[in-house]
Amino acid sequence: MLELKEKIKKEGKVLGNGILKVDSFINHQVDPKLMDACGREFARRFATVGATKVLTAEISGIAPALMTALYLGIPVVYARKTKPVTMPDQVYLTLAPSHTRGVMSELIVSPEHLKHGEKVLIIDDFLASGATILGLVRLAQAAGAEMVGIGALIEKDFEGGREALKKVGVPVESLAIIASLDHDTITFAE
Amino acid sequence: MLELKEKIKKEGKVLGNGILKVDSFINHQVDPKLMDACGREFARRFATVGATKVLTAEISGIAPALMTALYLGIPVVYARKTKPVTMPDQVYLTLAPSHTRGVMSELIVSPEHLKHGEKVLIIDDFLASGATILGLVRLAQAAGAEMVGIGALIEKDFEGGREALKKVGVPVESLAIIASLDHDTITFAE
Repeated sequence: MLELKEKIKKEGKVLGNGILKVDSFINHQVDPKLMDACGREFARRFATVGATKVLTAEISGIAPALMTALYLGIPVVYARKTKPVTMPDQVYLTLAPSHTRGVMSELIVSPEHLKHGEKVLIIDDFLASGATILGLVRLAQAAGAEMVGIGALIEKDFEGGREALKKVGVPVESLAIIASLDHDTITFAE
Repeated sequence: MLELKEKIKKEGKVLGNGILKVDSFINHQVDPKLMDACGREFARRFATVGATKVLTAEISGIAPALMTALYLGIPVVYARKTKPVTMPDQVYLTLAPSHTRGVMSELIVSPEHLKHGEKVLIIDDFLASGATILGLVRLAQAAGAEMVGIGALIEKDFEGGREALKKVGVPVESLAIIASLDHDTITFAE
């Protein structure tokens, strides 16, 4: 998606260790118009998979997931990383490593909002190793829901996430695929 | 705002201790169409304040703040509660109590995205005691930005937040004002 790639080229910063800083438009400051366009594009790409719910992980998945859900006309659920007092005692919980924080995070979803028979489309900001998204897949499976698609704003091709997600057996769509981040240079795939 | 009040009446649950559970449409599962309508309404109410940036706190402020920013055509910044590695060492940081978690949370904003002279509209999910919003106000003031408005989806009138925000001296708008949550009954003001 050209609009997103242009923004990454213009404002993305390579920090080393494969970390791409995009906090001027995705994960601290957010560009609503760009997120709107990305949500519209995800909705177009996943128009025929029959999703009944978008699932994402707090925090930076919320903006693209919300916009996708808006255009698909379905609700979005964001997995929590800490359990609020408003959540029931019995929850779906899994662990996933946080790439930029270097720790394991809990991903928690209430059984009230993820149910047997639902068709789940996962939308997240990054597809890197795929670990967070696989955590979300485990939550969906634990709930007896069916996976129907996976979308990420930015895929880091060199971290192997797409390969790791193959076993899920659903379409994987990324709006910008980065082939390498070597020497402070962002190189897109294709 | 009728649409939000109807949803609260239908799906909101009173948990005791003044806690209103709205996690089927605001802070775990999100209703994108409702958030879209709320964002549009905030944009209408704050159309003339000249905001250049929407500021909110992760996590559940993100959806309404994003939609408001979309309709105002300006960026949104969400204060982080933990500092990611992508953020510079020097940041604006303040502490605010988390009502539903019973702990003090850090609120952190990067000086890259909140600057002197900016006109800040704060949008959050709840206005209860006002403590989180006052934390965001301190961050805006530390950055030398000017406050121009404060909006909340749901105001708990009985927790005194509106009084606490008076000293900020800007318009405060809530889309649903709750007078009491006694005996499992949600009573709206007006």
